[in-house]
Amino acid sequence: MTQMWWRDACQPLDTAAMDQARARQQQLTKPTGSLGQLEGLAIRLAGLQGRERPSLERIAITIFAGDHGVVEEGISAYPQAVTGQMLRNFVGGGAAISVLARQLEADLEVVDLGTIDPMLQLPGVHHLNLGPGTANFARQPAMTDAQLAAALQAGRDSALRALDNGAQLFIGGEMGIGNTTAAAALASTLLGCPARELSGPGTGLDSAGVRHKAEVIERALVLHGLRADQPLQALACVGGFEIAALAGAYLACAQHGVAVLVDGFICSVAALVAVRLNPQCRPWLLFAHQGAEPGHKALLAALEAEPLLALGLRLGEGSGAALAVPLIRLACALHGQMATFAEAAVADRPA
Amino acid sequence: MTQMWWRDACQPLDTAAMDQARARQQQLTKPTGSLGQLEGLAIRLAGLQGRERPSLERIAITIFAGDHGVVEEGISAYPQAVTGQMLRNFVGGGAAISVLARQLEADLEVVDLGTIDPMLQLPGVHHLNLGPGTANFARQPAMTDAQLAAALQAGRDSALRALDNGAQLFIGGEMGIGNTTAAAALASTLLGCPARELSGPGTGLDSAGVRHKAEVIERALVLHGLRADQPLQALACVGGFEIAALAGAYLACAQHGVAVLVDGFICSVAALVAVRLNPQCRPWLLFAHQGAEPGHKALLAALEAEPLLALGLRLGEGSGAALAVPLIRLACALHGQMATFAEAAVADRPA
Repeated sequence: MTQMWWRDACQPLDTAAMDQARARQQQLTKPTGSLGQLEGLAIRLAGLQGRERPSLERIAITIFAGDHGVVEEGISAYPQAVTGQMLRNFVGGGAAISVLARQLEADLEVVDLGTIDPMLQLPGVHHLNLGPGTANFARQPAMTDAQLAAALQAGRDSALRALDNGAQLFIGGEMGIGNTTAAAALASTLLGCPARELSGPGTGLDSAGVRHKAEVIERALVLHGLRADQPLQALACVGGFEIAALAGAYLACAQHGVAVLVDGFICSVAALVAVRLNPQCRPWLLFAHQGAEPGHKALLAALEAEPLLALGLRLGEGSGAALAVPLIRLACALHGQMATFAEAAVADRPA
Repeated sequence: MTQMWWRDACQPLDTAAMDQARARQQQLTKPTGSLGQLEGLAIRLAGLQGRERPSLERIAITIFAGDHGVVEEGISAYPQAVTGQMLRNFVGGGAAISVLARQLEADLEVVDLGTIDPMLQLPGVHHLNLGPGTANFARQPAMTDAQLAAALQAGRDSALRALDNGAQLFIGGEMGIGNTTAAAALASTLLGCPARELSGPGTGLDSAGVRHKAEVIERALVLHGLRADQPLQALACVGGFEIAALAGAYLACAQHGVAVLVDGFICSVAALVAVRLNPQCRPWLLFAHQGAEPGHKALLAALEAEPLLALGLRLGEGSGAALAVPLIRLACALHGQMATFAEAAVADRPA
């Protein structure tokens, strides 16, 4: 690739704002540390937003959709047609993420990178037509270099639109029948961990289906001869359009100073790809939840992530990230609005 | 006690509404079970509210405050004066729960059952003056039978006010310097578990302080000769005014059909007392979070609770329960507003 924009520098955190926020947390009328993870979250957001008291009004959610050629290996419980059908559901308002976006008053954008129906034209969906889904990575690379570059750029474009719209938080969601297989293949490569330890039921495989899925991945990894230190090549060979777009979006957010809330297993794989492509992006990534897909825990550990929720979610669409938004908003409200010991005339320790 | 109202029958769950809600969950455009705990939560609320699609607009939060004579044994990091000072902060709007109640648009009520300053008169606080805090349970029973009955009734009165105000959810909070000691003593008795396994830092004891606290509790349990099958006696001997009020509120909510969201360690102890006094109340109790106090995990296990959050919280005031409210609201929105497979023309399994 000629123009490797993802290597460009990311924004630094504002350490002065973080110091101010940390000092403020110590003065609020509560025992030190008693708000647990929410205290560190407020301080982190202060650093990302460059002010002592962060806020979270404007949220951008983009769902990236793409089909996966590897579905012909029989690795999914649902037919590929569902990807396109769900695109209609996203803009129609009936999908989980549509409901959540409404409740959160977040902007919802839907990007179709390439599904099995190239003629699909849905009002409100950005159709990019990178291809009729990826190629079957059990037999050949999932995408060409041109497709990979276009997918990364599509994510970047979404991040830049979010920036233009004043978003204080970017949530990427994904939809793509078969994409837990691509994600597990990528994670297996980048973590150096056997596919069977990272493969799960996805949308609903039984145990025999999960074993088959792991075997398909293991064979593909042998076929492509991927290495952990070649994230871009791994993304091209066994990734997916939507996973590449997510990675591109995360990297562009970090470069332009928009905080990211990472959703579940697939998004966390995209986050790992992003961090391997440009480690400077890591501080911009907040992690929403630990999902039910068995590989997610190992991924979060590798990313040293401290997710906010663990509700056994395995839906995707950015839904887990959306569910964590109110917690972040409340963390900001507590940080910004609680009285200090001095203001409230409450005795602080020691007695 | 002459009038043991807490033994009266609790409302049954509406199993027909739960069946309808369960059937609806199966039809929504998502893989079965992919919303994890939120699916069961929506179904449970359907049973509690008696309708297929529950909602959660009106929320009542009551903070019960009381002082603890056992503080003279040196078991708290903060002085007792803080209880009264925090009452002022609750109604003044600067405490964590005040901020959260505003954000959630919840009704916030503050009940002072009895603090060390009997002259305290704060606008907006119900002062009940049961006594200048409890007696030091390391030396004598914490409260008289009359005080216990009044505290239980105070909780019931709050629950009935919430009912009158149309509350769909009741959150009890607590404030009382020293109350993790009373709670650990109660839990130790009711769970038959050594106090050292249930004693934690509370608002901020160091490890020597925690050891001392456990020793104070162990000595008190020997003094009072408490048994696991005598929850009322345990409550009187080593409990606290606010813990008894919480138990009374939970029981009255269950008797009058108002769902309860239980906060942290102290509230969970009150919930355990309530369940031991009248096991029928258990289905009405939802559990918000697993907090940082080490005894909380054992309590939740004994109650077979599945908390929604685990953020390392240890503030009390009902704050952890308040933080979980948006998740419950979003669970209701997803359940009520998502499209079915038929409505969205999405293919369900099998392919």
